[in-house]
Amino acid sequence: MAPGTLLYAQSGGVTAVINASASAVITEARARKIKVLAARNGILGALREELIDTSKESAAAIRALAHTPGGAFGSCRVKLKSLEADRAKYERLLAVLKAHDVRYFLYNGGNDSADTAWKVSQLAQAFDYPLTCIGVPKTVDNDLAVTDTCPGFGSAAKYTAVSVREAALDVAAMAETSTKVFVYEAMGRHAGWLAAAAGLAGQSPDEAPHIILFPERAYDETQFLAQVKKVVDRVGWCVVVASEGIQHADGRFVADAGGGKDSFGHTQLGGVASYLAGRVKDQLGLKVHWTLPDYLQRSARHIASKTDWEQAQAVGKAAVQFALKGQNAVMPVIVRTSDAPFRWKIEAAPLSRVANHEKKFPPTFIRKDGYGITDKARAYLQPLIRGEAYPPYGNDGLPKYVALKNVAVKKKLPAWEG
Amino acid sequence: MAPGTLLYAQSGGVTAVINASASAVITEARARKIKVLAARNGILGALREELIDTSKESAAAIRALAHTPGGAFGSCRVKLKSLEADRAKYERLLAVLKAHDVRYFLYNGGNDSADTAWKVSQLAQAFDYPLTCIGVPKTVDNDLAVTDTCPGFGSAAKYTAVSVREAALDVAAMAETSTKVFVYEAMGRHAGWLAAAAGLAGQSPDEAPHIILFPERAYDETQFLAQVKKVVDRVGWCVVVASEGIQHADGRFVADAGGGKDSFGHTQLGGVASYLAGRVKDQLGLKVHWTLPDYLQRSARHIASKTDWEQAQAVGKAAVQFALKGQNAVMPVIVRTSDAPFRWKIEAAPLSRVANHEKKFPPTFIRKDGYGITDKARAYLQPLIRGEAYPPYGNDGLPKYVALKNVAVKKKLPAWEG
Repeated sequence: MAPGTLLYAQSGGVTAVINASASAVITEARARKIKVLAARNGILGALREELIDTSKESAAAIRALAHTPGGAFGSCRVKLKSLEADRAKYERLLAVLKAHDVRYFLYNGGNDSADTAWKVSQLAQAFDYPLTCIGVPKTVDNDLAVTDTCPGFGSAAKYTAVSVREAALDVAAMAETSTKVFVYEAMGRHAGWLAAAAGLAGQSPDEAPHIILFPERAYDETQFLAQVKKVVDRVGWCVVVASEGIQHADGRFVADAGGGKDSFGHTQLGGVASYLAGRVKDQLGLKVHWTLPDYLQRSARHIASKTDWEQAQAVGKAAVQFALKGQNAVMPVIVRTSDAPFRWKIEAAPLSRVANHEKKFPPTFIRKDGYGITDKARAYLQPLIRGEAYPPYGNDGLPKYVALKNVAVKKKLPAWEG
Repeated sequence: MAPGTLLYAQSGGVTAVINASASAVITEARARKIKVLAARNGILGALREELIDTSKESAAAIRALAHTPGGAFGSCRVKLKSLEADRAKYERLLAVLKAHDVRYFLYNGGNDSADTAWKVSQLAQAFDYPLTCIGVPKTVDNDLAVTDTCPGFGSAAKYTAVSVREAALDVAAMAETSTKVFVYEAMGRHAGWLAAAAGLAGQSPDEAPHIILFPERAYDETQFLAQVKKVVDRVGWCVVVASEGIQHADGRFVADAGGGKDSFGHTQLGGVASYLAGRVKDQLGLKVHWTLPDYLQRSARHIASKTDWEQAQAVGKAAVQFALKGQNAVMPVIVRTSDAPFRWKIEAAPLSRVANHEKKFPPTFIRKDGYGITDKARAYLQPLIRGEAYPPYGNDGLPKYVALKNVAVKKKLPAWEG
């Protein structure tokens, strides 16, 4: 019996190491003589039968994929609804899988993707189509249930901690006659994971970041400004890290406050750092600078965490191994067995336990005053940013990131009308 | 005769490698048995007689200084005016130098610092005080005359090119269902050097950055938006790099347009990227993200250019050598002797040729359509970002940046009343 084909797809926001998972999937499948197709732009490509034949890529290209950020086959922000509501889509998906003799479906993403993979596995069983569905974890948001962490988070966390430490040295040197307050906006609409990671940049209360604003704590402007003033009076300068998701006590996002229209009717794109900087300037009269790293923080493969990179590859490799063992509807998750020395292993967790759950940021990770992280948070976060995994560089001074050929597989079905 | 003491001070915005110059100065001076004092917070420390005894730092600390960003002794934004207007300050400075038997004054900064060093040398001559004054070049703005480039620029340029390439991979992967336009704001109030460096991230017109906005070209909104649309239509997505200094045809800074007050009377801190993103959203209806790296771009020692790092050390070392040879009122400048292979050497240039001059961004570096760089620009910029010079990392996943002890020298003069 031919072993069948494996379909791999990426979903949601990409990371610095999702391609490392892809590389591991392809490498492991090749070693086991399994053909790997990839969907172009995630689930959209699967629905449209836009598949990529990864066998056309050289071994060197697949190795280089492991150090290339972004999503090599394209990703998408498309969530399939329930089996009932999106029945036609699920059936189309199954038709595409069947047409290409796909027996293993690996979906690399977050919560929604775990849910989709789980539903596809249910439908395949209902249709008596032999298909093994695996969710492969990924997200800088670090909000997947069960797994100790999500590949992608550790590298974004390392970027955050390193950037805050570096910028703080700049501010410290200039504070006497220039910028006294620096505000760094970290990703995290729903949870303070990346803002917390910034806390690794310093140890003592006088080291940056002096103030972290978590979405888990209501933003109190009076208290915040008083805290900034206190730090500037004591230290001479102040570094603030704010999660993009911080909210006022009534639930309004602080980021929305800065938006609106200017006097010309032009859209004002605000953001949390911009808003906070404006308040510091207006209310405290201090010179302030701010940064919004935005996508830089999740694509910064040049400063990837080695731990994260290894875990991204480990989940990719395990996904193929689980698939070939017929472990249907599971996700390879990271199980931490020890903080110090840091030890972890991969286990299979049922998708039912991952999908539609959310890992919350633990209240015990936030310092009593609300503006910093606890030792418990450090113990959890620190190993995740440990180690460097530099990409190779060319003589042009730039990382050698690979662009795959992405050769299309011939379509076998009528065009999708979805 | 005792060889006298050397005073080193940092000035203006710090960079990822100004401490590498400091490290080289101290190392070279130590090898020649010259005592090195450093001024706390630049020229302010010299005026206040707040001097630091660098002999209290270990050899290991001085080595570590070479890979630590920021300004280890503090810097400042204070410009001394003409000898007439600021006579009292210059005389106080000379009094402090005399009190501590300073015979060599090394001022590490940009244009203004070169000017100050030059004026101090004139005053010392007028007072018949034997003092050798040297300007040590530094600035991410790359606007110093005579020298081929300014230490600090190459590392910021590398950060820019690498970050743009990485973010572009993110945008490319997500464009079908998410962000189609990404705007990156580069430092450069007066010249497009860093924005131009972003151009190294891509080669062909379809590679990011697709559009660079230079302060040297008037910003034409209609044309810009048409260009964005054209790129999105052709490529599927578009990365824009904008210099913070871009201006409308009438000379108004685009960055100022986004500012003002919101409906609550709160200050809106705009910026160029935020403004452009708003226009793209309003006028083209495309999903847009933007980044303002701000200080991250000039403090990113973790992705420093090896060329830049070596040049920063070379100017520091040469500064001491010139000083000891009595080459008064000069600056060690970088002379490029060949693009490919890249070759350079250090020469002494009179401060009179550097101070109060400005290196302009060459019109020949901007592509005919105004939105990209030429081959000539590439030939100049590319060697400057070549090579990596990683700092060592600890087991905590963070770079091992050094904090000096900065032991104060006992004051000998009355407090400064300036």
